Formats: sequence, structure tokens, C-alpha cells
Amino acid sequence: MIIIMKPNAAEASIHAVSDYITQNGLAVHLSHGTEVSIIGVVGDKSRLSSDTIAFMKDVDRIVPVTESYKLSNRKFQPSPTTVKVGNTSIGPDSMTIMAGPCAVESEEQLMIIAQSVKASGASILRGGAYKPRTSPYSFQGLEEEGLRYMQNAAKETGLSTICEVVSLEAINSAVKYVDMIQIGARNMQNFILLKEAGRSGLPVLLKRGLCATIDEWLNAAEYIMAEGNPNVVLCERGIRTYETTTRNTLDLSAVPVLKEKTHLPVIVDPSHSTGHYKYVAPMAKAAVAADADGLMIEVHNDPAHALSDGPQSLTCEKFDRLTKDLKPFCELMGRSFL
Amino acid sequence: MIIIMKPNAAEASIHAVSDYITQNGLAVHLSHGTEVSIIGVVGDKSRLSSDTIAFMKDVDRIVPVTESYKLSNRKFQPSPTTVKVGNTSIGPDSMTIMAGPCAVESEEQLMIIAQSVKASGASILRGGAYKPRTSPYSFQGLEEEGLRYMQNAAKETGLSTICEVVSLEAINSAVKYVDMIQIGARNMQNFILLKEAGRSGLPVLLKRGLCATIDEWLNAAEYIMAEGNPNVVLCERGIRTYETTTRNTLDLSAVPVLKEKTHLPVIVDPSHSTGHYKYVAPMAKAAVAADADGLMIEVHNDPAHALSDGPQSLTCEKFDRLTKDLKPFCELMGRSFL
Amino acid sequence: MIIIMKPNAAEASIHAVSDYITQNGLAVHLSHGTEVSIIGVVGDKSRLSSDTIAFMKDVDRIVPVTESYKLSNRKFQPSPTTVKVGNTSIGPDSMTIMAGPCAVESEEQLMIIAQSVKASGASILRGGAYKPRTSPYSFQGLEEEGLRYMQNAAKETGLSTICEVVSLEAINSAVKYVDMIQIGARNMQNFILLKEAGRSGLPVLLKRGLCATIDEWLNAAEYIMAEGNPNVVLCERGIRTYETTTRNTLDLSAVPVLKEKTHLPVIVDPSHSTGHYKYVAPMAKAAVAADADGLMIEVHNDPAHALSDGPQSLTCEKFDRLTKDLKPFCELMGRSFL
Amino acid sequence: MIIIMKPNAAEASIHAVSDYITQNGLAVHLSHGTEVSIIGVVGDKSRLSSDTIAFMKDVDRIVPVTESYKLSNRKFQPSPTTVKVGNTSIGPDSMTIMAGPCAVESEEQLMIIAQSVKASGASILRGGAYKPRTSPYSFQGLEEEGLRYMQNAAKETGLSTICEVVSLEAINSAVKYVDMIQIGARNMQNFILLKEAGRSGLPVLLKRGLCATIDEWLNAAEYIMAEGNPNVVLCERGIRTYETTTRNTLDLSAVPVLKEKTHLPVIVDPSHSTGHYKYVAPMAKAAVAADADGLMIEVHNDPAHALSDGPQSLTCEKFDRLTKDLKPFCELMGRSFL
Repeated sequence: MIIIMKPNAAEASIHAVSDYITQNGLAVHLSHGTEVSIIGVVGDKSRLSSDTIAFMKDVDRIVPVTESYKLSNRKFQPSPTTVKVGNTSIGPDSMTIMAGPCAVESEEQLMIIAQSVKASGASILRGGAYKPRTSPYSFQGLEEEGLRYMQNAAKETGLSTICEVVSLEAINSAVKYVDMIQIGARNMQNFILLKEAGRSGLPVLLKRGLCATIDEWLNAAEYIMAEGNPNVVLCERGIRTYETTTRNTLDLSAVPVLKEKTHLPVIVDPSHSTGHYKYVAPMAKAAVAADADGLMIEVHNDPAHALSDGPQSLTCEKFDRLTKDLKPFCELMGRSFL
Repeated sequence: MIIIMKPNAAEASIHAVSDYITQNGLAVHLSHGTEVSIIGVVGDKSRLSSDTIAFMKDVDRIVPVTESYKLSNRKFQPSPTTVKVGNTSIGPDSMTIMAGPCAVESEEQLMIIAQSVKASGASILRGGAYKPRTSPYSFQGLEEEGLRYMQNAAKETGLSTICEVVSLEAINSAVKYVDMIQIGARNMQNFILLKEAGRSGLPVLLKRGLCATIDEWLNAAEYIMAEGNPNVVLCERGIRTYETTTRNTLDLSAVPVLKEKTHLPVIVDPSHSTGHYKYVAPMAKAAVAADADGLMIEVHNDPAHALSDGPQSLTCEKFDRLTKDLKPFCELMGRSFL
Repeated sequence: MIIIMKPNAAEASIHAVSDYITQNGLAVHLSHGTEVSIIGVVGDKSRLSSDTIAFMKDVDRIVPVTESYKLSNRKFQPSPTTVKVGNTSIGPDSMTIMAGPCAVESEEQLMIIAQSVKASGASILRGGAYKPRTSPYSFQGLEEEGLRYMQNAAKETGLSTICEVVSLEAINSAVKYVDMIQIGARNMQNFILLKEAGRSGLPVLLKRGLCATIDEWLNAAEYIMAEGNPNVVLCERGIRTYETTTRNTLDLSAVPVLKEKTHLPVIVDPSHSTGHYKYVAPMAKAAVAADADGLMIEVHNDPAHALSDGPQSLTCEKFDRLTKDLKPFCELMGRSFL
Repeated sequence: MIIIMKPNAAEASIHAVSDYITQNGLAVHLSHGTEVSIIGVVGDKSRLSSDTIAFMKDVDRIVPVTESYKLSNRKFQPSPTTVKVGNTSIGPDSMTIMAGPCAVESEEQLMIIAQSVKASGASILRGGAYKPRTSPYSFQGLEEEGLRYMQNAAKETGLSTICEVVSLEAINSAVKYVDMIQIGARNMQNFILLKEAGRSGLPVLLKRGLCATIDEWLNAAEYIMAEGNPNVVLCERGIRTYETTTRNTLDLSAVPVLKEKTHLPVIVDPSHSTGHYKYVAPMAKAAVAADADGLMIEVHNDPAHALSDGPQSLTCEKFDRLTKDLKPFCELMGRSFL
């Protein structure tokens, strides 16, 4: 922690800050500049209250030197993590494709899609059983029934499965039926849910909040990991900006930024970020080229009659063509696929 | 709902859309323009899937004509709502000030602040017992113990009380001790929590999400109201923008916009939005002048040693001066205060 | 300038940075923390290239300690500036209202509006003769002819005048006819134009760019002032955010933030920021309460037939009522008006 | 244009709107819904003032049906445009790489970089002679002297050249020395400059404004094209968001969106958007995979001593490696390169 004093701060003010720090058992390095004086704090800053210092006389501002997230921080674990999910895994050597409908609508629908995406190269089946919808009057999901369909589809196809959870109740059900749980964008800072996900024992896909900074996102991962669950995968799914031609703005630069800051795997969702099926293929290719570890793509056998997010869903045929197109990109990136 | 066809859409495509609409029991008004054709849908659009239409051939885009929120919509209830909270109420004729510490830290701390803000003119005591914090390593609140202190402070001072809730468990505790519950910005689209708040029987203060549009905010209110709870108050608390000199950007224009769109009361939180105590007074005055129905202000007897958000808290003295300064502004706005 | 080294930076890397600094004639304060080492630079940092340091081995990041703007900085000139404009002035003791049409459309139109806003209490007449429009097919202004009408209206009413300029040619014309020039939001970082405005000899109203930070805005003011022109007034006019119920988001907190960072006067434009005439009155009152030094308000005798921005213009009657309503707010703020 | 009336709009109000439209020589299609009435306008809407209608009684809102840009609109010219620049061209069949220093610093520096980027596969040399800098105290460029160095480097290497212009004076100089001019992000809505660029006769690279929507961007292109210059290339270079780990947020989805809306070529600048050299390579690959027609990349022989934007510049060695890495991606996309 560095404390920058105001220009012409009184000697007494500088002493007061130094005294507060040393009284808390930390050391001080004082630097008198020509314009301002700077106080460096040496030692375990968790013993100090930066708010207390912020209120001291002639203090201009406080600059943190270290990140607040530790377990997810690449500084403390340099090699990339591989997260095992059912009978597959997500990490630096492979391209993991999660595919399936936005919402599980019926057993038949799910089975058709599952068989199709399996044949096209997906390794994880996605499907929403608990749908957080903007309006209370929209379809909210089949809940536990939907999870059972997911389990059946997994048995039939050999796919691993992922499902979004929105409550402790949903986590308790999910544990019985699926291989991975997802925390959605709207719940990224639902800290109660993050802690429950951490205690679930299942690997967790953590989507970025609609206006979350990368720092906040890694701190949310920290909530899960601090409960003893190291199996966290991050999913970039677009952030909110002023631009309206796409539903959100896919922040693809977040992939290399995250690769630098954390050892956790990073995947990209080109469906929710763009909101239009026609932009999914170019953004999927771009995500692979940006070195993402996986993709999450919405696929529906009949998008025109989907109960949720039809316009952004690929048909099974379009998805099949996309995976074929992606294959050589994955090879260029040195990632196994299929 | 209006459907705009692409330029030179085939007659067959226009027919296909019309047929889909009429087959669902709605009427169609067709308008052939010089550049494009437009199809107006007459009737209850909830019978239609706009996604299905979006996928039909030659459809360019779909324009919704009515809002998805109904219970909170001023079009259907023109006169402003007054919400009763404990022994006070929030509405068009008065200025309600909620004040207190960000976090309840101890019984003594809370009592000192409660007595002070009561004397200065606050009518509702705020205090956080469940704190959603960005980092899992920060202070998370006293939980039910904190709620008991709130109740004691209420008995002692006659203030009504409000407390943020973050889970069903917290709601169940809050119902026993406080007069109003708050849904915080990070949980504005935690739809499970919104429904539980709707069923709690207590009036609900719904803070705007960090990047929520006004439409999403009113839809979140709809989740609470759809459970049979009409007592919702909205709180503007700043939105996330690129500007960093304040913690968030207080969107004060949201006050007149909301007054037009909804009959629910609207209050403003100048503490969280700006993040600095020195900006609280000018923004509080501005909020009153913009016709807000109330203010939520953080007050601490010793901000330099606060466990949370000290830098944005007013001292009891500064708060007392602010309420004195606000009085003539409230009078100008025709609102009773004190 | 403070240089934060990476954790476990090599001694040799720290030496290399120190040597570079001392070789450039500056002094170094080294602070070895438990996690990271920090290097404080003492002296005139303009002699150093922070980019060069950023590239040195084991350097994590560089924290600037002082602002790049000097002439507009309140640290170096603590008392607020009053800027003289024609026969009036903008500063801490008064409320200056600039009013008039978005675009000058005809001599009659301008004269009617000028007489009306003068009677209602405006002291500066605004009117656009050079209109920067999003589409090349929209009305672009009467240019010099419009400026002549402004001069005539000024003579007739005694109002001072302001006009936006978009080129050196426009500045050269404006100098002959009006009392103050305006740099619009889209040109806030048109540095060529800023320099020309600085050399014009006229006071300059500098509108905030659509997505300009407060720091960038003050640096833009610095471009004008560095040419020897100290007469700069800042105008907050809304920033671009994701919210679409208003044209832009009025950042009213910028008023107290600017009052702290600069000695220059600050005014607010509630017309362009909200984009709807019905939100102008509440935001104008709020701006006065937030301690703005003035307001810029669009007024039109017939908004329904305005050639530009009609929906946000007040009628002369509504403007008259607004100034009457504002009067007691100005008195509360200790500002003379009328 | 569609006019949506308020619920329960009076018949007289609907008539008034219809009358206004028909009196202006256009036709009306009236649609009476169960909740609202809608008025479709048939004919050349440029004869109408939407502002006038917005002010009419009981009008709720107006929905435009067609875009305001015409010349750049793909609806009216379906096949993609190829723009010739010096001895190369930018279009759908090739990958054009523009590379060079942010600022031209000396003839030697430029020649070294030019020879190196030529050898690595660039076809256009970029170099800034007029630098728009946030602070007036930063290096502002060598101006015409820099342009002469560009011309010499072109002669020596056979590269085509591009240079940013910031004023009419700069355009007049650029025409003598370089093959293409660039309008920078800060000048994207400097309409005077756009018109001058349109009249220059040179192809124009139009960078996206820092917070420009895609619609505003295409309207800016329209300003250039409306002067008779069809040779416009668009460059995505990042937009301003709340995220600070990269300088701006590269909006790569803009590439497929633009491909749909316009026939103009689109290139991507991964250097300015990310602001860090280490993110340039993954974002360059991603841009190719997203189907960009070209890249603009900053290259410097000694980034640590660059006078501008060193941290985002690649060394000549890193650039050479990047072009080798990009080659197979270009082949996959069916684009010739080198």
C-alpha cells in the first residue's frame, strides 16, 4: 500500500500517518518528493484500515499494490489449471465445446439436440432448467424435471452436462443430476450463491457479470475457491456498453488479460454476447484464435419455436458446419478437438 | 407489436407472417410503404412468440409497442403511490430521510448514530447486517445480531428501520426485527430473492442494479409486485460508467423519468453513488430539487474507523448540518420534512 | 511518479530502474516491501519517459502522482475564477442563464426568442450558426448570416451572445459578431480547434466530450489556456452510457468534482443531456442545487417546427415559468439572478 | 416512419397526425390496436419533420424504419467494395497489414522500421506526423517534415503509405506525400474535417470514435462519401467502457455487424484498442478469424524509447513473428497475404 500525501502536507500530518502504521506493527518508507511526499507501507496490510488512513489529514489518495484475490491469482500459481468435468476436462491443451438449448423444453427436444451436438463434436451438453428472466411473465424453466432430462441425455450420449443454478435449492438438485454448475451473469455478485457453489463439490462455470470488471470477476471466483473448491472456469459473455447492434459487447481482449492474471481456464460464449445467431460463427472463430480454452454455444433444433433466446441459437446444421470450420483453427492453436 | 419487413420482401414472406399472426387469433394491419412493408399486430401479443416471427423470411426487426411491466406502470395507475413504512411513509408529499451506518458494528455504535440522526430529522434508520462485499476477505456483517440492535435502536428512538437482505434466511430474520427490507444493487436481478421479498409482507426498497436500465429495474419491481406486494420504493444509487472520479455516476435524470413511467416512490442515495462524503451534500440537495421522495444517506459517528465504506459516510455533525440545509429546499418543493 | 516492481523482482532490475532515474538527474526513494519493492521518483518527472521505464525488466506498473493539467488546476490557484462575457460574467456569486434556440433559423425567429428570454431573466443569448449534425443530410446552419442575426439581437436586447464554432473560419467570423465561443462535445478533443480558440481572444465555453473523463476535459481546457487565454468555462452536457430513456446521462456529480479540481466556472446543459423538454426543469433545479454557476437551456418559440432538436426545447412560456421557479433556489445558494 | 400513439389517444389526435402527413403529400396507414393505435407513413419521409410530429398531442414515440446513411449502406450496394491504396488494395480477397510507428520521429527511425515491416509482409506503412495528444505538453509530431520521411520510405521500400490528418492544412500537405489519409477517433465527428477528407481525392481510413455507435460511424463515412469520395475504409480501434485492464475495449463483433450493414472494407487496430503490446498478437489473430479485411499494427524499432505509445508497440522482431503466425489464419479465411 502506498499513501500519497497532498502537496505541502504538514510534517505533523505525515508523522500522524506514519505513527498509525508503525503502531499497527508495520514498517514505513518515507519519500519526500519535490511536489508531494509518499509513504510506503511494508508488511501485512490486512492489519490496517485504508479507510482510516484515507481520513487522516493531508492524505491525497491511497494506491493498493497487490490484488485482493489470491487463490485465483497467477502470481501465486504460474501454471494453468485444468478442470475435470464429468468425463472430459477444460484446460490449455484442448478445445472444449459446450452446446445445447438455452432452456430445456422437453425430453424429446433435449435428446434430439444432445445427439446432434455430440455427433458434431461438443463434449458438454448445456441446458437451462432454472431461467433467470428479465420479466416475471416469461418462461422460467422446468426446474428439477429439466435436470432429469439432462441426466438421461448424458447417459444416452456420453456427454458431460452443465446447468445454471440460481438458488441453494437448485444447487442441491443439480448435484444429483449434472457434472458442472453455472453461475449466471446476473448472479456473479450473489455472494451467498457463490459460497454455496463453492461448497457443492461440483466444478463451477462462472460467467462474467454484465458490468463486472475483471478484478471483480476474479474476486467472485475467490468466493468459490475460498470454500475449498478449486475447480472454477471463467466464461466471458459480453459486457454492457452503449452499443446496441449486438445485445452486449463481447470483450474478447479479456481472454489474454485473464490468461495473464489467473491460472483458471477461460471460455467464451458468442451466443449471449452477440444475441444474434448470424454473429456466432465469426465470434467463435475469433475466440479460438484469441486462445480461449472453450466455447459455450446455444443450439436448438427449431430456434423459431424456442421458448427462450431463439434468435441467438444455431440450428443443429449450422452448429455442425461451425465445428467443422473451427477444427483447423483449433489445430493452429495446438488444441485437440474431437 | 410492429413487424418491419426487409426492403423488397417477397409477397409470400409477408403472407407467411400475416398467416402466423391470424392463426394465433390476432388481427393484422398491413402497410405497404415505398421502401418497406410494415405489419401491425392487433390483440393480445402474449399469445405470439416474437422469436418465431424474428426467424421468418424477410423479417427485418420487431418493435414492441407496450412495456412488459404492468403493475408498476403509471399508464395503468396514474396517481403516485405512498408506501407506509413502520410509523412513517414515503410518497409525494414528504421528504423521507433514511440515515445510518453502512454496517451495524456494535449496539453502542448503532444507538449513538440512531439518536443523532433522529435528532437531525431522519425518519428511518438504515444499517447493514448482511454485507455483500467484493472480496470474501472483507467484513461480512453481524447478521441476526445486527438486526436485534436495529430493533433496539428503533424502540429507543421511535425511528422506523430498514435493512438489506441477501438470502431467504436473511428475509426470515428481517421480518422479525425491521420495518422495511432492501434489495441491493448486486441482487437487483436475483429473481429468486425478488420473489421471496415479494412474499415477505414487508415494504421493499429496490436499489437499481449497477448497469440496469430503467426498464429492467421496473421489471425487477414487477417480480416483487407480482407476488402480491405493492409496497415497492425505488432507489437510484449510481450506475457504472467509464468515469472514475466518483465511484459510480449518479443518474439523477432517472428521477423525472421514473416519475413519468411509474407510480412508485423514488429515493436517491448520494453516498454509494459518489463514494465520497464531500460530494454527498451537493448531490442530496440536487436530488431534492429533482423531486425525489426521499434520501438514503450513510452516517457514522467515526467514519475513519468504520468497518465498511467509511470514506463516503458523513459524520453526525455533517449530517445534522445537511438536514438543516435541506429544509428550505424541501419547502420549495412542497414537501414536509421533520 | 511511483514505480511498482513485480513480486520477487531481481535486485539487478531494481538497480536498472534506479540508475535510469538518477542518470536523468532525479532522485530515487527505494522501499522494499514484504511483497513488492517500490521506487519513488523525486524531481521534475517531465525529464523522464514513463514508457521507457514501463519496458524495463520486472516493472509491474507506474503510478502518476500529479495531474498533467496545471493552468486549470485548483491546487495552483485556489480561488474560483470569474469569466467576463460581454456585459455579464460567470462565476461563484451569480447564476448565469444562457438561453436561445438550438439553431438560428431566421432573424425574426431569433429576435422573438431573444426578447422573450431576456424578459425571463437570461443574460446570454445562445444560438447555433454552425451545426455539427450526425447525418450530412440534416440542416447544417446559417453560418455567418446567423452570426449577424445574433449581433442584431444582442444590440436590440442588451443580451451577451455565444455561438458554437467548428472551424478556424467559424472562429474568425465569430470574433466579429459574438461575445463568447463554444467548443461542442464532438470537438472537445479537436486539438487544432482548441488552440485556435485559445488564440481568438474570446472567452470559451468548453463542453464535455460525449465520453470524456474529467481529466481529459481539464486537459482540453489546458490546450486553450496554454495559448494565453484564461477565460474558459466548462459545461457538463451529459455523457454516453447504456441508458436510453434520456439522450445522454447528465453527470451532475461532475459539478462538485470539478469545483474541487479546478478554479474554472462550471455550467450545466439540461437540454442536450436529457434530450426531452419535460426533463429540463427538474434537471435545471438540480443543477442549481448542485452549485453550478450557470445553465444553458434551449428555448424555441415554436419547438414543433424547430429545424434542430425541437423535442428538447422549452417554449418561451415554459422557460419563463422555469426562471421564476429557479429564483428561490438561486437565493438559497447565495447567487444573484436577474 | 411509424408513429406510435399513446394508449387511449383521442380520435382527434390521431386525425391531426394523419392530416399533417397527408398535407405533406405522403400516405397514411392506420392500425387501431387493442392497446394503442399506430400510424405508418408511406412515401419520402424527408419531407416530414419527425420533431413536429413528436410534439403533436397523444404521440408516444416515433420509430424510424430506414437508416439515414445511404451511400455506405449495403442494402443499396450488396457486393463488397475494394479500395485501392497506392500499389495495393483493401478488400474481401486479401489481408492488408498497415504497420509502422505511432509517431514519425526521424528519417532513420522510419526507414529502419519501414524496411523491417516490408520484409515481414506489411503492404502499407503507417506513421503519425500530426499527433492529437490528450495533454498540450506532449510531443505533437514532426508535421510536414514527417510526411516527407514517409514519402522517402515509400520510395525506398515500395510500401504504400498512410498518415493521420487533423486539419485542412494537414490534408493539403498529405495529398503531396502519402497514398491514404486517416481520420482519427477523436475527429470522427469533426464534420468539417470529414468533408475536407471527402474532397481530398485520397482514400480515407475512418477510425471509430471512442464512443461512437456503428450508426454514427456509418453516418460519418456518409459525410466523406457525400463529397464524391467512395474510397472509405473503416477501422475498429476499441470503444470506451468501464473496464480498465485494457486501454479501450476492442469491439470485435463490430466486424460481422459492419459486414452486414455496409459494403465498405473493415480493418482492426489491436494496438490502440488494447494499449499493451502483449495483447496485440492474440487480438490480431482474432480479428483475422472474425473476417477483418486488414490490420493496423504499431511497430517500433525501440519501443522503450518511443516518443508516443511505446507500451503498445511491437518490436520489429515480434511483428515478424506475428505475421508468420497470421499467415495460416489468413489462408483459412481464404485471403491472400504477402
